[in-house]
Amino acid sequence: MSAAPQPPALRHAFVTGAAGFIGSTLVDRLLADGVRVTGWDNLSTGQRRFLEGATRHPGFRLLEGDNLDLPALRAAMAGSDFVFHLAANADIKDGWSHPEKDLHQNTIATFNVLEAMRANGVRRIAFSSTGSVYGEALVTPDRPTPEDDAFPVQTSLYGASKAAGEGLIAAYAEGGQLDEAYLFRFVSILGERYTHGHVFDFYRQLLDHPDHLRVLGDGSQRKSYLYVQDCIAAILHVARLGTARGARHRTQVYNLGTPEFVQVKDSIRFICGALGLNPRLDFTGGDRGWIGDNPFIFLDTRRIQATGWKPRLTIEQGVVQTLRWLEANRWVYESRR
Amino acid sequence: MSAAPQPPALRHAFVTGAAGFIGSTLVDRLLADGVRVTGWDNLSTGQRRFLEGATRHPGFRLLEGDNLDLPALRAAMAGSDFVFHLAANADIKDGWSHPEKDLHQNTIATFNVLEAMRANGVRRIAFSSTGSVYGEALVTPDRPTPEDDAFPVQTSLYGASKAAGEGLIAAYAEGGQLDEAYLFRFVSILGERYTHGHVFDFYRQLLDHPDHLRVLGDGSQRKSYLYVQDCIAAILHVARLGTARGARHRTQVYNLGTPEFVQVKDSIRFICGALGLNPRLDFTGGDRGWIGDNPFIFLDTRRIQATGWKPRLTIEQGVVQTLRWLEANRWVYESRR
Repeated sequence: MSAAPQPPALRHAFVTGAAGFIGSTLVDRLLADGVRVTGWDNLSTGQRRFLEGATRHPGFRLLEGDNLDLPALRAAMAGSDFVFHLAANADIKDGWSHPEKDLHQNTIATFNVLEAMRANGVRRIAFSSTGSVYGEALVTPDRPTPEDDAFPVQTSLYGASKAAGEGLIAAYAEGGQLDEAYLFRFVSILGERYTHGHVFDFYRQLLDHPDHLRVLGDGSQRKSYLYVQDCIAAILHVARLGTARGARHRTQVYNLGTPEFVQVKDSIRFICGALGLNPRLDFTGGDRGWIGDNPFIFLDTRRIQATGWKPRLTIEQGVVQTLRWLEANRWVYESRR
Repeated sequence: MSAAPQPPALRHAFVTGAAGFIGSTLVDRLLADGVRVTGWDNLSTGQRRFLEGATRHPGFRLLEGDNLDLPALRAAMAGSDFVFHLAANADIKDGWSHPEKDLHQNTIATFNVLEAMRANGVRRIAFSSTGSVYGEALVTPDRPTPEDDAFPVQTSLYGASKAAGEGLIAAYAEGGQLDEAYLFRFVSILGERYTHGHVFDFYRQLLDHPDHLRVLGDGSQRKSYLYVQDCIAAILHVARLGTARGARHRTQVYNLGTPEFVQVKDSIRFICGALGLNPRLDFTGGDRGWIGDNPFIFLDTRRIQATGWKPRLTIEQGVVQTLRWLEANRWVYESRR
């Protein structure tokens, strides 16, 4: 890394999905670091409230628009020098009732972001991909999955649409249309402003009926989680190092996660322990929670750790931190009903 | 394989890209085998003339339409029991002048084919993918690339769009929407009705100016080719065996190629030898012919060979056979000017 040319400064970031959980947290961090930010969001699932702090900052502007509207996206991006493309359909479980949603919001949207970059001469991108692109870790299921694992068979529309987005970005970068492309394959992210996922669902249930909890699958699914501030620290760390510069490939892929996993039942224990509850657990059964659920997500994170980044919170700490935030921000349940 | 349940019969095939090079050859073979065929083609690059024989057959009908027109596609597919999805944008070199073409014609088109299948209850598909999905065979560049090679970084819009199509099909199959999905990663196919690619280009040049030949790159690019009848025999062999039935995954991936490769200059030697010409060779230079060209394509074909299929023609025989057909069918040059 030390031999790589100095990366250009990050002065004006364009953040898609800026009003979302991860996006708004990134916006706040960038502004605190003195970076100008144009936030872009269609506010379909984003929350204006997450940007209350940002909108008081002179370096921030929020533009409301959709990635499927290429002319508007192109105009909004003018003057930016780095794109953080976080906007996505993250409604993973419900794929088969509207299969075109992942295609449009994850694949075609990413194509439009790339075309807007090309039109504006913006040549650096960071993309929030997912460990779901590995499908079932087919070859060696009981070790953490490395970035160069076997070419996967996709098992979900969500994973397939994100893998397609990755492929498009890489084709643009390797085809000389971008200078730096960073693809981050996330485990599930949690923390402040978390508005979907198992902690969200379990806490909602326990608010309604503290004496029992319905759990998809048999609770044995092994999953990894990463605290949102650790996730953002990793992205910015790599973007600032500019690891793609001078590398063989302009596309650099990083798994993001903690070097541990937990079972869904562990997570239930963390949550119930923190709330002082002892609900009856009603498991729906089966080794996965829904069609396309992956019963084992555990990513090998040695590549990102080799850059000098480390997560600060364990999974247990992340789960409890998330729960505390949900307790103090029950309005997020109201806003999604 | 012998333990797998008997696959259902193939009675009524739906072939997208039916008027194309490979599609029309498949149509003829299916009809000869007593299978009813609905051919679907938008005739943008397909040739009605390739279907002259088929249209005289009572088991054939050609429906003119585009994969981007989902309602028409859905209606056309009614009554079929197996889809051979061959329609694609195969204009690989020219990606950056219209980057949306691969997205629309390879990725979105495949999504529409899957949705039409779902609507019609058609649960078996064979898909023409490409060795280009491997990008540059990154990890071990000097051995043939196996199907489970390392998760690739995409290097071309074409490869990315086909990989995205594969991912969608796999997600439908693994999500229970299909029973059998066969993904065939082709090397370059040649033979009768071949209307694009290096033999086509070289012969056109040599018709215009037999004394010199312009060659993209430095001629050292190593490539694999497969004769079209061998390609089709492989697809039908696997489809009839029904290798996905009873397998761990409903998605079965097969590389298709010969167990050999040639350099571009070898291919020139075959062509010039067959034509009795000795042109001056003008190499444009560089280790690849165009942006996104892959200087080494050589697929490991042991998996398909293990099913009992073998190619009949060598690369040299396939090149010469192609040239003989072009010599007898110069009209294909006129029809594409």
